[in-house]
Amino acid sequence: MPKISKKGDLMPSSPIRKLVPFSDAAKQRGIKVYHLNIGQPDIETPQDAMQKMKDTPVKVLAYSHSAGMLSFRKKLVEYYHRFNINVTEDEIIVTNGGSEGILFAFNSCLDAGDEVIIPEPFYANYNGFAVTAGVTVKPIISSIDNGFALPPIEEFEKVITPKTKAIMICNPNNPTGYLYSQEELETLAKIVKKHDLFLFSDEVYREFAYDGEKVFSAMNLKEIEQNVVLLDSVSKRYSACGARIGMFVTKNKEVYKTAMKFAQARLSPPSFGQIFSEAAIDTPKAYFDAVLQEYIARRNVIVERINKMPGCMCPNPKGAFYAVARLPIDDSDKFCQWLLEDFNLNGETVMVAPATGFYSMKGKGKDEVRISYCLNVNDLKAAMDCLEAALKVYPGRTL
Amino acid sequence: MPKISKKGDLMPSSPIRKLVPFSDAAKQRGIKVYHLNIGQPDIETPQDAMQKMKDTPVKVLAYSHSAGMLSFRKKLVEYYHRFNINVTEDEIIVTNGGSEGILFAFNSCLDAGDEVIIPEPFYANYNGFAVTAGVTVKPIISSIDNGFALPPIEEFEKVITPKTKAIMICNPNNPTGYLYSQEELETLAKIVKKHDLFLFSDEVYREFAYDGEKVFSAMNLKEIEQNVVLLDSVSKRYSACGARIGMFVTKNKEVYKTAMKFAQARLSPPSFGQIFSEAAIDTPKAYFDAVLQEYIARRNVIVERINKMPGCMCPNPKGAFYAVARLPIDDSDKFCQWLLEDFNLNGETVMVAPATGFYSMKGKGKDEVRISYCLNVNDLKAAMDCLEAALKVYPGRTL
Repeated sequence: MPKISKKGDLMPSSPIRKLVPFSDAAKQRGIKVYHLNIGQPDIETPQDAMQKMKDTPVKVLAYSHSAGMLSFRKKLVEYYHRFNINVTEDEIIVTNGGSEGILFAFNSCLDAGDEVIIPEPFYANYNGFAVTAGVTVKPIISSIDNGFALPPIEEFEKVITPKTKAIMICNPNNPTGYLYSQEELETLAKIVKKHDLFLFSDEVYREFAYDGEKVFSAMNLKEIEQNVVLLDSVSKRYSACGARIGMFVTKNKEVYKTAMKFAQARLSPPSFGQIFSEAAIDTPKAYFDAVLQEYIARRNVIVERINKMPGCMCPNPKGAFYAVARLPIDDSDKFCQWLLEDFNLNGETVMVAPATGFYSMKGKGKDEVRISYCLNVNDLKAAMDCLEAALKVYPGRTL
Repeated sequence: MPKISKKGDLMPSSPIRKLVPFSDAAKQRGIKVYHLNIGQPDIETPQDAMQKMKDTPVKVLAYSHSAGMLSFRKKLVEYYHRFNINVTEDEIIVTNGGSEGILFAFNSCLDAGDEVIIPEPFYANYNGFAVTAGVTVKPIISSIDNGFALPPIEEFEKVITPKTKAIMICNPNNPTGYLYSQEELETLAKIVKKHDLFLFSDEVYREFAYDGEKVFSAMNLKEIEQNVVLLDSVSKRYSACGARIGMFVTKNKEVYKTAMKFAQARLSPPSFGQIFSEAAIDTPKAYFDAVLQEYIARRNVIVERINKMPGCMCPNPKGAFYAVARLPIDDSDKFCQWLLEDFNLNGETVMVAPATGFYSMKGKGKDEVRISYCLNVNDLKAAMDCLEAALKVYPGRTL
């Protein structure tokens, strides 16, 4: 029997999926599990856009342009202008979800063995895309003690080698919820310019910025305009993860042309998702206002409750719908499994993601968990009751 | 300004798209262009399946399972059984079009520098996926003189090295329309077994087998069951290229598990496309019967007409909706461009694909073109009138 590839062997498994068998088993035992482990919003997808997609007559469901339907890309230009991001339809490639955009960026800009610096903890699947493209991730630590702010410029300098080709950020951040300030982005621009690197900026949580903050897009770093690739997706903003529509945006014509070769090889992004996403751009502001208010209320429950638990600490995230909390535990992998296998509070428990899966440095994140607040406030309160009770009796507690 | 990757530089451009600016220019001059260059069927997509998708209420357009919706995979099991392909829902991964399945196969089974043998001419995008995965394609020639039959086993043996990890076929074949016989598949199985290789079998044209022939699936090569990956797609069979739904199917648990890691990294295939494709499996047989009849009529026009043209030869394809014809021309790239730039017959011309783009050996395919017969019979006849007239006056004719 022929052997699988070394690459396939290296490919990481999802840190969240590891726990799925345990949560399934808990449910089979009749235990209610509050899922704070995944970034699947529970918010209703804009039904007007859905209806418009359904009302669009499609006689032949044909390939679209490899860069995406022109009408959709034109509408995206309008969307980006609202956020002060000035791009044209010829600077956008519509991708199969944000995921494909990341692969396009890695493949177009980096060769096997090249390095990309990513502040960690970071979105676990970046590792998978790096392995797929043969790219090496060089992590630098952003610390919970200063709320996961951008690491100082010296930390970047320390890991830059001749093989370093790019820096990647996620802003607002998954898993930390941290929102980078304009100043931090400008700091980043300096180092990008100095070493002539690419900057990949994953901004899929653009709509989820709280407390009056706004996301400063990497596309607005004029000095490094040619170095930036914006990675984007409709998944979170319209609660439309299943549409599988993302965007790869760059003003660098050479990079665009190269990414288009990868886009042409796979022919086109999904048509239904594009029709829906084009219509979704007309979703009224009231929808987002309501969503924002809801998420702020959710975040407040999480942050307030956790910070009141003995030995716990949770920075107040300004964006996305995640928080990383420090807990008085020996090992977050064990703890998260224990929550599903051995704990319940009146027949209920909570599923969170061990933060270890978001770090590539061994040993990091052992006392941290990522909490996704994609549940309603009442469920979140009940989930926090579980967490609080669990921490009192967890055999591996360090307090 | 940072440089693009070497990989991006190596990435081939589509041989068909190169001509698009010339066809656009021809249209701007008021010339009608018959498109025999692309595999985009003109057949109506089953409207019942479309309606069922539209009637499915979707409150939250969520991620599906990374392997695809369970209900869809179960329905696919039913679909495959009809073709005597016995697989279970746990042997299927739903992919973003057939394209992604090819990447999963390359990435799961081959490392950078490993070799895959592909009889050529072959589907041009295989090259793009090979470059993406760092895999080297080792072509062996299938010749127009015997209708593009499987090359003799010695030809495979000649190119096998310690780096050879797989053989890839497309059956029925794009671009040749050739349908491999059971005997040919069994020959292939012997060499696959002898050298312990993977066999990737792209069978997306399964429904398009003519003259009473049936496709013998590589999945039914029992002796090498663990070596086979079936690559599939709904694009052609339901005229649903825009759904972007493909299938990666294997009985090899190790390969499946590995491909699932790549599938999990990109989260899920498109939901709308899956709902549509699940419903499409109930498309009545009458739909396919009508389509088959139509394509046979189309093929007959192409084959009969071309074989009557002086110096021309076109094998009679038994499957898919392509044919490769030999023409008395100096250079198919020049000829195809000339058809668009310098030729018209009463304001009409024809666009075909130079076969050079389907060979990786330099110099091959210079007197061949690929003809896709995705147009109705009347248009095909008019297109053949153009081709016939063009061959009489083409300055680079060799006759």
